[in-house]
Amino acid sequence: MTDVGIDAIEVWVSNLKLDLPKTFAPENGEDPEKYTKGLGLFASSFPDSYEDIVTMAANASYRLMERNGLEPADIGRIDVATETAFDKSKPVSTYVAGCLEQVYGKSLTNANKGERKFACISGTQSLNDAYNWIASGRNRGRGALVIATDTALYERGDAGEATQGAGAVAMFIDEDPDIVTLSKEQGIGSADETDFLKPNQQFPSVDGHRSMQVYLARMREALEDYKAAAGDIHPDDIVYGPFHTPFPGMVKKAAVLAYRNVIRDTEVADELEAEVGRQPEPEDFTDQEDYLAALREYTDSLRDTERYQRWYKERIRPTLTISREVGNWYTGSVHVARTSALLDGYDRDRDLVGSQMIVGSYGSGAQAEIHAETIQPNWKRAIGRLDIQEQLDSRYDLSFAEYELIHDNHNLDLETDVEPLTTPDDEFVFAGWGPMGERKYQFVA
Amino acid sequence: MTDVGIDAIEVWVSNLKLDLPKTFAPENGEDPEKYTKGLGLFASSFPDSYEDIVTMAANASYRLMERNGLEPADIGRIDVATETAFDKSKPVSTYVAGCLEQVYGKSLTNANKGERKFACISGTQSLNDAYNWIASGRNRGRGALVIATDTALYERGDAGEATQGAGAVAMFIDEDPDIVTLSKEQGIGSADETDFLKPNQQFPSVDGHRSMQVYLARMREALEDYKAAAGDIHPDDIVYGPFHTPFPGMVKKAAVLAYRNVIRDTEVADELEAEVGRQPEPEDFTDQEDYLAALREYTDSLRDTERYQRWYKERIRPTLTISREVGNWYTGSVHVARTSALLDGYDRDRDLVGSQMIVGSYGSGAQAEIHAETIQPNWKRAIGRLDIQEQLDSRYDLSFAEYELIHDNHNLDLETDVEPLTTPDDEFVFAGWGPMGERKYQFVA
Repeated sequence: MTDVGIDAIEVWVSNLKLDLPKTFAPENGEDPEKYTKGLGLFASSFPDSYEDIVTMAANASYRLMERNGLEPADIGRIDVATETAFDKSKPVSTYVAGCLEQVYGKSLTNANKGERKFACISGTQSLNDAYNWIASGRNRGRGALVIATDTALYERGDAGEATQGAGAVAMFIDEDPDIVTLSKEQGIGSADETDFLKPNQQFPSVDGHRSMQVYLARMREALEDYKAAAGDIHPDDIVYGPFHTPFPGMVKKAAVLAYRNVIRDTEVADELEAEVGRQPEPEDFTDQEDYLAALREYTDSLRDTERYQRWYKERIRPTLTISREVGNWYTGSVHVARTSALLDGYDRDRDLVGSQMIVGSYGSGAQAEIHAETIQPNWKRAIGRLDIQEQLDSRYDLSFAEYELIHDNHNLDLETDVEPLTTPDDEFVFAGWGPMGERKYQFVA
Repeated sequence: MTDVGIDAIEVWVSNLKLDLPKTFAPENGEDPEKYTKGLGLFASSFPDSYEDIVTMAANASYRLMERNGLEPADIGRIDVATETAFDKSKPVSTYVAGCLEQVYGKSLTNANKGERKFACISGTQSLNDAYNWIASGRNRGRGALVIATDTALYERGDAGEATQGAGAVAMFIDEDPDIVTLSKEQGIGSADETDFLKPNQQFPSVDGHRSMQVYLARMREALEDYKAAAGDIHPDDIVYGPFHTPFPGMVKKAAVLAYRNVIRDTEVADELEAEVGRQPEPEDFTDQEDYLAALREYTDSLRDTERYQRWYKERIRPTLTISREVGNWYTGSVHVARTSALLDGYDRDRDLVGSQMIVGSYGSGAQAEIHAETIQPNWKRAIGRLDIQEQLDSRYDLSFAEYELIHDNHNLDLETDVEPLTTPDDEFVFAGWGPMGERKYQFVA
């Protein structure tokens, strides 16, 4: 079968920044370390008043096409993943295609456009749909544009407020890709859960504690399902492990559980036995509580081993670098994590061709997916085109008062008219409403 | 390549009925023929107060599984297509899976659940995603459950009010299917249009006249794209042509244009030349208006030929039978049309094995898709299991006052508490709200 995967990636960071330790913590009378150490977050990215999920998606896509020499005729499919949709019928992808047609003066008439929704996992679902479309041979020589775009806002005062973020990731999926191929095997773990939802409302209802438990439970099921399809995973065979990152602290929690799962019955467990004992197994306990307590104790000891710490530092922590500076991008989050990992490899000039990543995606409601990705010979050329650090550095640093204004500006229940804090430059902007309540966009050169 | 397509179909008609000529027309002081002849509609199906997009989807799915001997373990993927979603994050498919797990006592943990949105075309997009998933070999022996479910309500007094409807179509997609295989070839016609949208609102904003033009323009593009991939279509090779049916009159309008398109340069055009002349071509005219006028005249003459009338009566009109009695089901509509066609073949005991249908789907916003379907040896066994006529006949016939109450009951902007007009029987019902604003469901035996 043809190798199919990610040929190009582009990340669009929205133009404003809320500094959590410097601006957000003092105003809330809180220790900055609650954010930097507890959540692992330093800043949130925010959209200026002329930005929204369409402009971010269109800007990421346009940059992707420009930097990689793609033309509208190369694109046979455009899927957008979002949980910030502003229309129950018309998909964001049609707006994005309209934007791209404006600047290219060429049509995307024969590109199949769509939109997927499932909390934060739909970006990965769209990626897999694109893979399936190409692997099934229906693409007629064309690739797919997959875009994850979200403005992750919480109600003011909500526990999730510090984890907010906004941005878009665009990916071009093609045969013989430059960056990674995707495994045919996938693992799924899924259940009808109500950990996070948005029932006819903009801001989410969240049971944060439950959502963390559900994340871990679904990830475990997905991992088991992946192993059933692809065989066992050895932790040292994974060069990076990008996971969905609602905040880096969540991934820190998940990583040790994943490690515990995959070392079972390997020489790693044997080698660690002197230090941390054997992994408790349910059949050795008559009482479930005793088993869970023993498991917690084993996990804590495992986390403290030098071997685990080295593994985490080398293979998981590098996936969190961008997330710390931008917050949660919902559907884009796991794709930011993959990008972050590859940038780490690029910055350290590592030889990663043929190396495997295990990618763990999650969406509340709830579902996790695990698949593998194999790094391709041209990955450095593709990753070298990114300018994420420049985007991060050039954001406008919000005062708390400005943050309050811009939050209100993006609150659909309020009518506000906020002057932009930045000047758009070579990008698509929201340009007001049309007669049927549709949003209008234009390119500002 | 393995043949992939629709192995089983189930249609769930919601439990209430609004009679258009008898109940709706008199109350609006209108000629009943405005609906029966103009739109081609006799009744709308309406959900009772305990029905919604989840109950209809779950009921269609449960029936599908029961009648076709399917178990949760047979299902590796559940996609729901809707433009009536009530949550921006949690997909309807998780609620449906929760319902099915209740009655089967077995889990759907490893089934990949999702939701697609693109006006009325997302049911077909989900069908194609399921096809791609199986054709790419990632299904691990399992099939996909694809469900189109919608409550198509318009604001009271809107021009679309008479075209309302509510119901669900569930399909099981598998290798070596019983009913139809899908063509590898697809044609897409797409543009960034604002003919119909729901910007942060329940009821649609519609430009009805424009939407009809856009439907026809996108269908033409999709047809051209399909022919570029699959070769020319001969009208007499198509046994049925199920199209998206917002109301039967729309399909009547579209069918003659499709016929005109596909007879070009065939012996059919030659044989009709004595009667209607040659089809005008743009290059024969200096003035665009003159060309369009000549084209309209040719089309009118073509429509009046006995040959076209016979073709329409035999191959298109049978696709509209169910639609006339239930109204517009949005995402389900084209799948109702296919079912209607196959029931016609079944009722007339036709030998259709190996015959080809051309299926034309459409979503406002806007996109059309054309693909072919080939009828399979076991189609009669599968279609014989349906009981749509019984469902239509057993609906509760609403008075106008009851219609007003039930419309208000499904209006999310109003708080109403309407007693059900029917008694649920062997079906899932809406059972109230959970603590986070989630909807609860239970099975009533």
